[in-house]
Parts: sequence; structure tokens; C-alpha cells
Amino acid sequence: MRLAAARLAILKMPHGDPPMKSAIYKVTVEFGDCDPANIVFYPNFFRWINAASNHFLVQAGLTTQRLGDQFGVFAVPIMETGATYLRPATYGDELEIESCVVECTGKAIRVQHRIRRGTELLVEGFEVRFLAVPHPDDPRRMKALQIPDEICAALGYAGQT
Amino acid sequence: MRLAAARLAILKMPHGDPPMKSAIYKVTVEFGDCDPANIVFYPNFFRWINAASNHFLVQAGLTTQRLGDQFGVFAVPIMETGATYLRPATYGDELEIESCVVECTGKAIRVQHRIRRGTELLVEGFEVRFLAVPHPDDPRRMKALQIPDEICAALGYAGQT
Amino acid sequence: MRLAAARLAILKMPHGDPPMKSAIYKVTVEFGDCDPANIVFYPNFFRWINAASNHFLVQAGLTTQRLGDQFGVFAVPIMETGATYLRPATYGDELEIESCVVECTGKAIRVQHRIRRGTELLVEGFEVRFLAVPHPDDPRRMKALQIPDEICAALGYAGQT
Amino acid sequence: MRLAAARLAILKMPHGDPPMKSAIYKVTVEFGDCDPANIVFYPNFFRWINAASNHFLVQAGLTTQRLGDQFGVFAVPIMETGATYLRPATYGDELEIESCVVECTGKAIRVQHRIRRGTELLVEGFEVRFLAVPHPDDPRRMKALQIPDEICAALGYAGQT
Repeated sequence: MRLAAARLAILKMPHGDPPMKSAIYKVTVEFGDCDPANIVFYPNFFRWINAASNHFLVQAGLTTQRLGDQFGVFAVPIMETGATYLRPATYGDELEIESCVVECTGKAIRVQHRIRRGTELLVEGFEVRFLAVPHPDDPRRMKALQIPDEICAALGYAGQT
Repeated sequence: MRLAAARLAILKMPHGDPPMKSAIYKVTVEFGDCDPANIVFYPNFFRWINAASNHFLVQAGLTTQRLGDQFGVFAVPIMETGATYLRPATYGDELEIESCVVECTGKAIRVQHRIRRGTELLVEGFEVRFLAVPHPDDPRRMKALQIPDEICAALGYAGQT
Repeated sequence: MRLAAARLAILKMPHGDPPMKSAIYKVTVEFGDCDPANIVFYPNFFRWINAASNHFLVQAGLTTQRLGDQFGVFAVPIMETGATYLRPATYGDELEIESCVVECTGKAIRVQHRIRRGTELLVEGFEVRFLAVPHPDDPRRMKALQIPDEICAALGYAGQT
Repeated sequence: MRLAAARLAILKMPHGDPPMKSAIYKVTVEFGDCDPANIVFYPNFFRWINAASNHFLVQAGLTTQRLGDQFGVFAVPIMETGATYLRPATYGDELEIESCVVECTGKAIRVQHRIRRGTELLVEGFEVRFLAVPHPDDPRRMKALQIPDEICAALGYAGQT
């Protein structure tokens, strides 16, 4: 079935090895995060996934400051996002979002997120981002940077073997 | 009782006369705007009140562009907000927010908002804002501008008679 | 490249023919929908996509009331969502979200959304949902309903030829 | 000035004594909580204030379960909210919200919140709530309960001396 395939695509590690680095971002589900069905309204999962990606970048030493100073990167915009919802979460749940980079090639960085309540996997999501630098021909436009190896290494992505 | 007094403070027109200008901002309540009690989660009312204030300023001709060019104003920050909730709103409700300026003196502009479903008044809210200009001694800091009469007039505030 | 493939997967019509029904949901981007980069914070796109799906169901005659009375469906939960961001949107933009059903087979309904500003395509997104009915063995649990042909027809999905 | 008065009204302790109980709720400001001015979009403060009130009730032993079982209360709806913004907060700030009950009389509970970054006070806010019980004449309607002394005591409100 298509959905199962989509799920696998998110899950598979590209090169057989587990990613080298992961970070945990913790969230407590509040009353106002839930909808009339008494479960988390899913755009809130993306709010948390986005925060978890930012947290991961900072933990990997890739602060806004360093990205700017060392690589000329002024933003890390989102190209694509997605999530598969396996089980709902509700008010009072304490969630952990485990994030790691599963792709860091060409101009795209793919951060994968697994949201768990205890050992139960609730949501699998991802963000694909690029590194924005000023366009050489027109500084008001942006251009996607070819991801430097140093950044992939900092993100714990070992690359193709 | 204290609450009734607070409500009156929001409602009373300062000088007996109705404000000269008002604007209507329309909102349809969506499923995701509602909480497990099946009513609008109140921070969303502030989201709409904020949009309604911005809409009012633009309708009054006080666009970001004009505020900057003519008055050196680079932001219209919020000092204080409040709301009284009389009746709940729920998914599918079509709301109208009627906004007007009830105070425009010294350094503060008070925008009052009445949120109705048809003829029923659901929420009364307000925002107090100031006009931020660069501080003369330090351009990185801001200073609240004494509100120019021309701005009060544009906002439909007649002033004390 | 992987990203291009993902994009095509969203775009392709499964059977060569355009979907029979689509609905338009309109959104004006407000100041508070935007982030420090001055563009829409993407979880808001999912807020709007979710509202657009609900709007589409209602327009197709599949109100909560009818889904319950006629099919025993008590909820239409989300299984999977995704979006590709082609161009940013910002404060004041007037957006149109065009929604249609591109898959209605087995237990899954896939609603596709294209978000445009005028003729410019900004975002392509989707929601995959199922129809929840009470589980026959345990009424506190839910079960995904095999989608009835009548519902696919109401959603404008012609099926495989 | 009116605004100063409003601020004092929030701050003053009704009976000279500090409240007996307070709770701390911690928040880290995320990128997506901020607006194009690079500061927290204020409806998010109300999202956190609401969570802090709920947290305070639970810490005081007034869980949804106990409120229902012991007092017949099925909801604790909001009547009024407000906030005064003294200094802005931005991405990465670690905030503490200190909450206490400053009024617990008649049918209203007023929870006061002070939001600080370190020792700096950024926002003062409040929520006024009531305890909803089924209306004796019509179980589909609600009625505000006269607040029992036991609840005020649990909330750390000593009452008038």
C-alpha cells in the first residue's frame, strides 16, 4: 500500500548505518494544543518538528552566527516537510522528539524526526532544508549552497561509502 | 463586581460620541481553532484582534509605508491587551470583528474590538499600541512618539471636546 | 533528485484525467502568520490546508452530520501530510488554496492542495485521511472504514478505469 | 495615566500579604513564536499563560478528575484575560512564568502571571476563570459555581481578613 511505502521511505537509513548524531527535544502537550477530538492538532507537530530541527542545528554547533560567519549562510529555508501519524497524542502527554540527519547531499539536508511517548512511536516527520547564500548576480536574491562536507560532518552524516 | 467594572471600562465611549470610523474584519472559525471543549481557544481571538487592528490601520490610510515615510515610525508595538469573553464561538461560526479607536492621546492608541456572531456579542477586546521611532540618542533603541493629531484624525478619533 | 521525485508524486494525477471536483479556500496572510524571516511560518500552511480539506468535504456534501448518520463515521483522522515549498508568502498576500481528491481507494482519501498567489504556485501539499467508525469488537476503539464508492463519487474521484 | 493604573491593578495584592502559593512554568522561545519584528507574537504569551494556569491548578491538586468528582465541575472557562508588555522576548530566550491566585471570591478565580527572563520582568498577565457546573434546570447549560472555600485554600488564597 502506498502509505506503507511512504512510511518506509521516511524510515530507511540511506546507507545501512545509523546516523552518528541525534538530539532529543522534549514537549509537554498542553490543552490548547489539542482540537475538539481531544488530540494534538497536527500543525502543532510541525511547530515542534521545526523547533527540534533548529535545536539539532545548534547542538551540532551550526548556530546562525557560525553559519553566517563561516559559510555566508543567512537562512536555512524549508523546501519540503512531511509527517506520518501513527498514534494520537493528547493533553498532558510528555513527548520526546528524536532528530537526526538522514540525507546531506547536493543542496539538501533532510532531518528526520521521531516523536515518541515513552517507547511508543507516535509520529514520524521530516524537514528538507537548504542553505541560503546571497546570489552572486543579485544580492537581493538567494541561492542554495552546495552543502560543504564540513557541515555534513558536523550534522553527523557520514555520507555514501 | 470587579469583572463588570472591567467590562464597562472597555465598553464606554470616552466622550459620549460614537467613534467616527470603524472597520469590520471577518473570520470563519475553523476546526483547528477550537480546543477539546469544542470552543475557540482564546489566544486565537488575540490573533484575530491583532489582524483586525492592522487591517484598521491600513483602512485608515496608515500603512507601514506611510507611517515610516511621513512620521519616521518603524513599528507600532503592543503595550497592553485584554479581552472579556461573553459567549463562546465554535467551528463553522462566521464572526465579525468591529474595530474602532477609543483613545488616541499622549503616546497611546487604544483600539477596541467587538467580536460578534450575527447580532450576538461574543468577545470585547482591546489593544493599546504606541508609535515607535528611533531614539534620538541611540538609533538602536526605540522611543514612543507623541501621537500626532493628524494620526488621531486619520483613525477617526475626535479627541476631547 | 529525490526532491524532484517527491514533488512529482504529489503532482501527478493517478489516471491521466483531471479530478472532477475542486474547491477554493481563500486566505489573507497576516503579520502574525509570518516569522522573523518575514515569510509564512510553514505550520500555518498546514493550518490552512487542514481548513481547506474540511471545507472541501463540506462542499462535497460530506458534512460531519451526514458522515455520521449515513456511514457511521465519527471522525476523519489524518494519516499523513506533506508539503513542498516552492516560493514564500508574506504579510498581505492573498492566497488561494485549490483542493481536490487524487486518491480514494481502500481505506485512504488523499486530498491534494495547491496554494497560489495569483497565478504563481507557492506550495503543494496533501493530507491523507481515513474514515473512522467504531470498532465492532470494542466501541472505544476506532476502525478505518473501506471507503464507500458513494463517498468517492461525492468527492469527485472517478476511480481506476 | 491610564496604562499605569491598569498595570497597578494587575500588580496589587488584594490584602497586603503575598499569595501563599505560586508555581513556575518554563518556556523556551522558538523561532516560530516570533514575528517579522523578531519578537514574540503576543498571542503566544496567552498560549503560555493558559498552560501556566492549567499547570497551577494541577500543582494545587485541582485536577480535572478531582474537580469533577468532588465538586461536579466539568470545565474551568475563561471570563477575562489581559496582559501588559514591558519588554519584548525573542528566539532563544528562556522564560519563567510565575503564577499565583490573587482573587478567589464569589464566582471568579483570578490567576496572575509574571513572565520573566532571568530577573527581568517582561510581561504581566492574568486570567479570570469560573467553575462550570451543569445548570440545575437544564443539564445542557452551564452555571458558575460559588467558589468553595476548600478550592480557594487549595489555590493558596487566604481570603479577606
